[in-house]
Amino acid sequence: MMKNQEAARATLENLYRIFTVPEAPDSTLGGIDQAISNDVSGFLQTHIVALERSLEEIEADFASSLIPEEPTFVSEYTEFVKEKLVAQSVHTAAPGFIGHMTSALPYFMLPLSRLMTALNQNLVKVETSKAFTPLERQVLAMLHRLVYQADDAFYQQWIHDSQHALGAFCSGGTIANVTALWVARNSLFAPSGSFRGIAEEGLARALKHLDCDGLAVLVSHRGHYSLGKAADLLGLGRDNLVKVETDTNNRIDMKQLKDVCRRLQDENIRPMALVGIAGTTETGNVDPLDEMADLALELGCHYHVDAAWGGPTLFSERNRHLLEGIGRADSVTFDAHKQLYAPMGAGMVVFKDPTALSAIEHHAAYILRHGSKDLGSHTLEGSRPGKALLVHAGLSIIGRKGYELLIDLGIKRAKSFAEMVRKHPSFELTSTPELNILTYRYCPGSVRQTLIRATDKQRALINVLLDQVNQMLQKDQREAGKTFVSRTRLRVHKYRGQVTVLRVVLANPLTTDEILTSVLEEQCTIVLQQDIQVLLQQVEALCTEIDTLPAAVCA
Amino acid sequence: MMKNQEAARATLENLYRIFTVPEAPDSTLGGIDQAISNDVSGFLQTHIVALERSLEEIEADFASSLIPEEPTFVSEYTEFVKEKLVAQSVHTAAPGFIGHMTSALPYFMLPLSRLMTALNQNLVKVETSKAFTPLERQVLAMLHRLVYQADDAFYQQWIHDSQHALGAFCSGGTIANVTALWVARNSLFAPSGSFRGIAEEGLARALKHLDCDGLAVLVSHRGHYSLGKAADLLGLGRDNLVKVETDTNNRIDMKQLKDVCRRLQDENIRPMALVGIAGTTETGNVDPLDEMADLALELGCHYHVDAAWGGPTLFSERNRHLLEGIGRADSVTFDAHKQLYAPMGAGMVVFKDPTALSAIEHHAAYILRHGSKDLGSHTLEGSRPGKALLVHAGLSIIGRKGYELLIDLGIKRAKSFAEMVRKHPSFELTSTPELNILTYRYCPGSVRQTLIRATDKQRALINVLLDQVNQMLQKDQREAGKTFVSRTRLRVHKYRGQVTVLRVVLANPLTTDEILTSVLEEQCTIVLQQDIQVLLQQVEALCTEIDTLPAAVCA
Repeated sequence: MMKNQEAARATLENLYRIFTVPEAPDSTLGGIDQAISNDVSGFLQTHIVALERSLEEIEADFASSLIPEEPTFVSEYTEFVKEKLVAQSVHTAAPGFIGHMTSALPYFMLPLSRLMTALNQNLVKVETSKAFTPLERQVLAMLHRLVYQADDAFYQQWIHDSQHALGAFCSGGTIANVTALWVARNSLFAPSGSFRGIAEEGLARALKHLDCDGLAVLVSHRGHYSLGKAADLLGLGRDNLVKVETDTNNRIDMKQLKDVCRRLQDENIRPMALVGIAGTTETGNVDPLDEMADLALELGCHYHVDAAWGGPTLFSERNRHLLEGIGRADSVTFDAHKQLYAPMGAGMVVFKDPTALSAIEHHAAYILRHGSKDLGSHTLEGSRPGKALLVHAGLSIIGRKGYELLIDLGIKRAKSFAEMVRKHPSFELTSTPELNILTYRYCPGSVRQTLIRATDKQRALINVLLDQVNQMLQKDQREAGKTFVSRTRLRVHKYRGQVTVLRVVLANPLTTDEILTSVLEEQCTIVLQQDIQVLLQQVEALCTEIDTLPAAVCA
Repeated sequence: MMKNQEAARATLENLYRIFTVPEAPDSTLGGIDQAISNDVSGFLQTHIVALERSLEEIEADFASSLIPEEPTFVSEYTEFVKEKLVAQSVHTAAPGFIGHMTSALPYFMLPLSRLMTALNQNLVKVETSKAFTPLERQVLAMLHRLVYQADDAFYQQWIHDSQHALGAFCSGGTIANVTALWVARNSLFAPSGSFRGIAEEGLARALKHLDCDGLAVLVSHRGHYSLGKAADLLGLGRDNLVKVETDTNNRIDMKQLKDVCRRLQDENIRPMALVGIAGTTETGNVDPLDEMADLALELGCHYHVDAAWGGPTLFSERNRHLLEGIGRADSVTFDAHKQLYAPMGAGMVVFKDPTALSAIEHHAAYILRHGSKDLGSHTLEGSRPGKALLVHAGLSIIGRKGYELLIDLGIKRAKSFAEMVRKHPSFELTSTPELNILTYRYCPGSVRQTLIRATDKQRALINVLLDQVNQMLQKDQREAGKTFVSRTRLRVHKYRGQVTVLRVVLANPLTTDEILTSVLEEQCTIVLQQDIQVLLQQVEALCTEIDTLPAAVCA
């Protein structure tokens, strides 16, 4: 018993220690901390193992479902983290990691993130955030102004208004998109007469109230998958997220959009929202935002623009015209962890109408009281960290002109990479970059010519083989760990069907043309592997067959 | 032109610098970073100004809605952050800050947070997280096992299953609760026959399919406000979040719950979910979880337990019986930024049935492909940071026994604070702590005796005055900045109505009995202020009137 008590006291003392005694600079964790402070890219370079272990092997290190009974020394745990976790992480900041939307971070983000963690504010309410609440409101106003360019008087009135918020800070673009559509749905079914609004009465009664058989959200086939989640979550059903065909440049086809709207109205289904995309996830193209605004106006429905990727293009005097019409949107989504270069986990949605978020307003007895400036009364999430600091820091330290340079750089680099692909005998550009994203695939020039001539059936046969080639190519390149591109499936108009393509996102300012050249060179080396060569020989055989037969026989 | 080009080149070079050159240790930001590393509580103590400035004053520092055109030096920006933001933040880690659910953080969380930020993994998919995905799956399995205690074979089968996830890691408890109810709704309306499920067809058709007039979620009046948001978001409507009365100890009244269920069934409204609370936000009480499980079984509905606060009580051998029956829940919410002592922004929901999350599964062409182990196919959120590392670290370094000590400590301290309040002539305990949360109010003993005797009207009059006293007391104490309690409004059964109460959360292990004593002492000093004394004199006058009149006249 005595011994137990002693053990308990010792554990208690250790517990106090972890809350009060810092990691010594010469400890394992202190050393890592210092190494990251001094040279983050060196640290990542040294500690992340390039060559990929299989996921199954890695899982063996994370196989126990038992919470350890006894405390573990920080040093021991840190060794584990270093060897098993860090070593097998993805070097998302590497300039050759151009397959996803994660870039290198500006250095100041690291110490400011620590400051944010140390302060551990909770933005749900002023009582646990104080100055962080005005700061977050300022960030929302800045983004609002970037999009909507209202005048000083407008922002003076609304920026710190106790009843309203100009937008919502979120954990990411998905919650931002969901919030926008939530507001759209609730605004359409606002209280009126004896109907107390959808927020109170629910969707079924709301539909009865407006006497319609359903609601629809319209977006192009390039719409982000979060919109499908939103349609499900909000009770609309994925069937009612209506996906419209795109033109040859991955922009929504306005004629088809209008046709669909007419058809829906005939079926007594109400268009609840149009969603325009400013930088599609897969190809970086921008919908005709201005024309969509006209249509939304005509339909009297909410107009949301998903600018999670492309929003910061507005920083660039040269390129902001690409987003012409965005200021007519009712709501716009931004992702700060994309082209605002904040660490993972920061999205925003801003609303043109400063009272729009009232449609989802909520209160509680212990916080979010009426008239408080608690931001939590207008957010889908509850407790939230002070990430707005990192966005504020980016906007302040980098400034409009700094972001402009980053944006222009990315767009320029995408154009030059597109040129490289176009000129290369073995690759085919499958989407022309408007912003800084493009897709291409391994497909030798001779095969492309044959594909044009081929019948639908022949083309499909060849494309299935090429899909496998590109899939293996992407996988092998990722596993080799030097450079990384992603892949997706995309409709390529001239082939009248979907093909597997490689996708490149050029937002890391440290990515050079030399790196891009080496990405293509590595891919040319990878295709020399036997299993891929076997596929390419089959492609060649099919092509020869098509090329040697007279056209009439093919058809 | 030449000059412009030069300026552009200079800005570009500066841009590269912020991505490649660390903050020097002797820079302003480097200095702050070092100070936090060496002594976080000293840093917070020194830099957070205790005395409160008014929010309006603080807002003046965050008034501009213009994004700065030109870059700002990091040092200059850091000075701004230090003086205007940090100084006016809330010292949530202070042992006297016992009003909300934020505690001091274990030291190791800081360097590990930096590591997490530096790695900048994205947990939506394996391609941008690799080892972090198995790690997050392990954390979910550990929490699952803590609740459900399935055997090794179960976890071996499911922990890294490519089609399923044992739970979802979220930005917080709100998203966790929403996810649980989303799954509940979609499971109730799963595809069957020609009905393709609510996810596809939407809520209106789903209700027709099951031929019911509505859905209800049942919870006590102490349910967290996130459930109201969920009911709105999911299309159920807040009317259909049915709030049931509680017993004298803030636990759901089972008889009333059963009555309500019968009434709903008579109205052809289907109970979609029962929600039990394991540690109510305002009072820390625990619903009769086992009895609720019986009822859910009888009703055939989803049973969710919101253990955002109280879940970690399961670590304690002495106290886990308080959560008896939690293992029968279909889903359970945890908040890691509460009693797992992780920094803000980490929640989780685990599901008993490892296939439950299939009800909200989704895919996309470029990620989350069928059969991938991408966690994003089963989460409401999209891109997410590697916060699971911090939970994993807590579970490993603190261990089950360490958490047990923390839990036992908090519960013990709440009991001793309740004793202090009970014994104090000027305070009234308004809810008895089961876990480590309690409420009380300033209300002298003599007034309490009068209140019992008073008529409803007299009682209401007095309580309105006492509400004002307690509201002012709480505000003044917060503004003085030495200690902090929160306030809420709570039904106190013996008074047959709601009163304003002070709320205390005892999770910070550095909070001592001496600090608790000083909280009450400070409150006794605050009430001596003239404006509060005026109110108390009015209370006294009313009491004298009641006390001197014969009971018959009062009635």
